[in-house]
Amino acid sequence: MPSYKLTYFNFTGLGEPVRFMLSYAGIDFEDERVSDEEWPQYKPLMPMEQVPVLEIDGKKYNQSLAICRFIAKKSDVYGRDDIEALQIDSAVNSINDLRHEMANYFWNTRPEWTPILKERAFERLGFYLDKFEAILNVNGGYFVGKKLTWADIFFASLHDYMSSMAEKDITAGHPKLKNVFNEVCNLPNIKSYLANRPKTKF
Amino acid sequence: MPSYKLTYFNFTGLGEPVRFMLSYAGIDFEDERVSDEEWPQYKPLMPMEQVPVLEIDGKKYNQSLAICRFIAKKSDVYGRDDIEALQIDSAVNSINDLRHEMANYFWNTRPEWTPILKERAFERLGFYLDKFEAILNVNGGYFVGKKLTWADIFFASLHDYMSSMAEKDITAGHPKLKNVFNEVCNLPNIKSYLANRPKTKF
Repeated sequence: MPSYKLTYFNFTGLGEPVRFMLSYAGIDFEDERVSDEEWPQYKPLMPMEQVPVLEIDGKKYNQSLAICRFIAKKSDVYGRDDIEALQIDSAVNSINDLRHEMANYFWNTRPEWTPILKERAFERLGFYLDKFEAILNVNGGYFVGKKLTWADIFFASLHDYMSSMAEKDITAGHPKLKNVFNEVCNLPNIKSYLANRPKTKF
Repeated sequence: MPSYKLTYFNFTGLGEPVRFMLSYAGIDFEDERVSDEEWPQYKPLMPMEQVPVLEIDGKKYNQSLAICRFIAKKSDVYGRDDIEALQIDSAVNSINDLRHEMANYFWNTRPEWTPILKERAFERLGFYLDKFEAILNVNGGYFVGKKLTWADIFFASLHDYMSSMAEKDITAGHPKLKNVFNEVCNLPNIKSYLANRPKTKF
């Protein structure tokens, strides 16, 4: 059994999809959370000076989506064939595009840019949530293939982070998205992870 | 044999990786290039109101990386196992992160933001090119597994676009990256595509 260690900061962000995926797959992992003070020592040791990084038997791998896909292949959530895998990857990239727009606004350090970035982030938030809700409506409540895939887990793992950035419950007006979020959070392995994860601001 | 139609604008950009991948795989495809004037009619017909979109037997799929990965699985460029696939996906995402930083600067329409976006884009360009060159140096001249993968094809497909945005040959000081770019462009199927593609500004 390989050993897994995830290195990320002490919040949800881009680490949370990896934590959700590892938990869903039933893979034990060390959940290393680096403080802002520790980060300068860690940064040069990371492949692209970024986290999340997953160590498998001591070898480091970076890029959260690539890591999540690798773990998805170890369980039953990457589709029934290559076309479903394409649709799942596509949904994940769209969800991540939304996360990126929100983060551009939320983490921006130039006050004079904030109004424009905020306007764009909220316009995109409304656009993507409506598109996603429509997809779930014609697809049995899931992103792809009328069953749970890692696109659903990925969305659920970013739900609270995006809600924090938006300062509102992002799925309040989107019942199918709310349902899939709740379903994922109630999967036994995810529920157990959530009950035990450190309490953080977002 | 399924029918393939790629819809994108009449330049390289995010369409070019898909064109390279389809060409490499020997898949005939319709290369639909939408003008700025036509785009308002096309936009609402696209899954996320974005291109590139690949139609396979009339069904539309979006997100360029997801499409490229789907095509990669049809040839021999997605690694020997799941760990290599993870490394390839990771490299592709890092290359795409660089492309995104360059595009943020290049396509920015707010003149007052340009100096800061430009400074960041060029800092990131230097950072990523040095990192990539180091990876190729220890890896037989390729991104992953000491053989050609779709990470190499993806990099090569964006080379001229990123050079246009940077207004310089981005691999001039990075010989391994230059080599892999040239090697990809000289693959018979890619060479044939390049000889026949429409001449565009970038």
